[in-house]
Amino acid sequence: MTLPRTATTFAPPVMEARRWLSDVTFTADRPLINVSQAAPVDPPPAAMRQAMAEVALNNDEAHLYGPVLGLPELRSELARQTSTHYAGTIADDQVCITSGCNQAFAAAIATLCAEDDEVILPTPWYFNHKMWLDMSGVTAVPLPTGDDLLPDPEAAAALITPRTRAIAIVSPNNPGGVEYPAELVQALFDLARKHGIALILDETYRDFDSRSGPPHALFQDPDWQDTLIHLYSFSKAYRLTGHRVGAMVASVARLAEVEKFLDTVAICPAQIGQHAALWGMQNLSQWLAGERAEILARRAAITAQFPRLETQGWRLLGLGGYFAYVEHPYDMSSADLAPKLVRDAAVLCLPGTMFCPDTDPRGAAQLRIAFANLDAAGITVLFDRLAALRLTA
Amino acid sequence: MTLPRTATTFAPPVMEARRWLSDVTFTADRPLINVSQAAPVDPPPAAMRQAMAEVALNNDEAHLYGPVLGLPELRSELARQTSTHYAGTIADDQVCITSGCNQAFAAAIATLCAEDDEVILPTPWYFNHKMWLDMSGVTAVPLPTGDDLLPDPEAAAALITPRTRAIAIVSPNNPGGVEYPAELVQALFDLARKHGIALILDETYRDFDSRSGPPHALFQDPDWQDTLIHLYSFSKAYRLTGHRVGAMVASVARLAEVEKFLDTVAICPAQIGQHAALWGMQNLSQWLAGERAEILARRAAITAQFPRLETQGWRLLGLGGYFAYVEHPYDMSSADLAPKLVRDAAVLCLPGTMFCPDTDPRGAAQLRIAFANLDAAGITVLFDRLAALRLTA
Repeated sequence: MTLPRTATTFAPPVMEARRWLSDVTFTADRPLINVSQAAPVDPPPAAMRQAMAEVALNNDEAHLYGPVLGLPELRSELARQTSTHYAGTIADDQVCITSGCNQAFAAAIATLCAEDDEVILPTPWYFNHKMWLDMSGVTAVPLPTGDDLLPDPEAAAALITPRTRAIAIVSPNNPGGVEYPAELVQALFDLARKHGIALILDETYRDFDSRSGPPHALFQDPDWQDTLIHLYSFSKAYRLTGHRVGAMVASVARLAEVEKFLDTVAICPAQIGQHAALWGMQNLSQWLAGERAEILARRAAITAQFPRLETQGWRLLGLGGYFAYVEHPYDMSSADLAPKLVRDAAVLCLPGTMFCPDTDPRGAAQLRIAFANLDAAGITVLFDRLAALRLTA
Repeated sequence: MTLPRTATTFAPPVMEARRWLSDVTFTADRPLINVSQAAPVDPPPAAMRQAMAEVALNNDEAHLYGPVLGLPELRSELARQTSTHYAGTIADDQVCITSGCNQAFAAAIATLCAEDDEVILPTPWYFNHKMWLDMSGVTAVPLPTGDDLLPDPEAAAALITPRTRAIAIVSPNNPGGVEYPAELVQALFDLARKHGIALILDETYRDFDSRSGPPHALFQDPDWQDTLIHLYSFSKAYRLTGHRVGAMVASVARLAEVEKFLDTVAICPAQIGQHAALWGMQNLSQWLAGERAEILARRAAITAQFPRLETQGWRLLGLGGYFAYVEHPYDMSSADLAPKLVRDAAVLCLPGTMFCPDTDPRGAAQLRIAFANLDAAGITVLFDRLAALRLTA
């Protein structure tokens, strides 16, 4: 008997990491530093919460089913702002709203792949992408990156087979932090186009990109929709993780296929979250600019402090978005080191093994530090604790 | 090249039906009667909306990711009330919350099936179940029902093969309306157990069942969790369709598998909807009893009025939950009759062809009338219009 779909993949890694906390007691003078979460820990600003309350009280429609592909006003606003952001042209009906960005990825794969097809993922990869591919009967083909965490288009080309349906990338990267250069994104797009496959580009963390101007020129290509499937999340920008609002930008024909998937797995995105996202896009651009500035300041603090660890053999491989991706100097797997860090340093971060296939030994030397929720003082304490570690190097 | 998953199924039927409205003008003296929707059209009561607004304003946690399997308080309350409702024993950790009941079905299938497995569905079936099975690479095996719309356990037994993983039923039925007798549900459960497969029981409309007491005894079986996967929706009871809150009751081991699926396709159910459902369970039992009484009164109006149509050759096949499932007397397929009813009678209902496989000719003679949103006066107008139809019989 063939294994059912869920039995072909692993349990959510975040849940495993949470279990490491259960048998450790933290003290007031050494509280837990939680750098495991790729999510804001503060609620949205008060004005947005007020706007959501008003929707609940006064908007009858917001309590009923909405269109499968999302609120028309939100699709339109995202089309407009995405066109501006990328200096490209995106029509309202080339945008759909999903119940979070993971669902957008799942929907994209359902429109591309059948059993035993293949999708190329640079490694370290985002584990939810790997899990969904497993459960879809699709082979995730690892594309190892170098010390810069950037995939090589020639190496990607060498992995393409008749079963390949897409290359899926995340920029700024989760877990690697690294911002993919525009030329690299373009090269992967060109490669995908040449082979008649899709480029899935997940830009969940784009609002915290350190670069100004469009991060790539794909949307300036008049035929972008033949190759590109673009994913976005409102969760990070507006702190709406609990409301499940993401988006996909793709061709109208693909969104007609996406509609089948979303109709059966969600029917429609939750309405209050959609109204919140719309309100945020219309009212929070200044606030979001401040959020970005703060994240970039925290990133600068990581850069400033990291030399303290380098002297002990640590290496900073990638930095950006919410993440620092690092190599540790210890003679043990990160799978063992991460729970040990909870006990010995009251630091929770995720091991590289969670982001790499078993066949890739480099994950054992790596850790992901989601620094976005730590202010500069917290970052100093984090580095104090890591620098004070005394393990066999 | 094999078709990608979404290309193996059809477009959401509800969207097609909506298109029939686009080129018809309705007048004030003959407005559209929309009996196509299996959903409330009114928002939740004011006190619940107030409670939701307060969550948005005052509950920081409700804006952030929650547990993949749902709010612990809601799981606990549903376990308690389900145990009471069915006079059975359900533990808190045998309940999970999903982003709507469709998602619960999708998750159940992911834990049961691999490519080319089979699931038995009585026909007429709920089209979203068929769509999800298609997209999962699972064969939906039709189990034709008789004029009473009830499946025959012996006929079901004859369809079981080594690839069968489940029998999936809906009671009260969508589209058929019929309430499955307790003995029938038990017989299907016993059959599933005997063959080591699952019984998926979708009770989305259970709050409007006309019977008092437990509608079946499955939860009184101390080993129910070895066979039963129970699905529920908060959308109909509390008018929360726009908030996406459903549930599954199953074994703890199965819910660990469900967690993998939900983590990748949703991460967590939207939080405000979960808080609303919890508030509803804690505060709206009296109100819900009134809702049920009103639906049952509308159902009685259908029963009282139907003889007017019987004289013209119509037959009432099933009645219950939100639905009347009828046979029309006309010499044309319901696929043609339904859009014609929009033009000629300003009535929108769904044709039986949407609920039957192409191989089943009976769907062509059938229509689903979702009467729940029509009051007694509206039901009279509906029957006036249908009785006045002049088509070739």
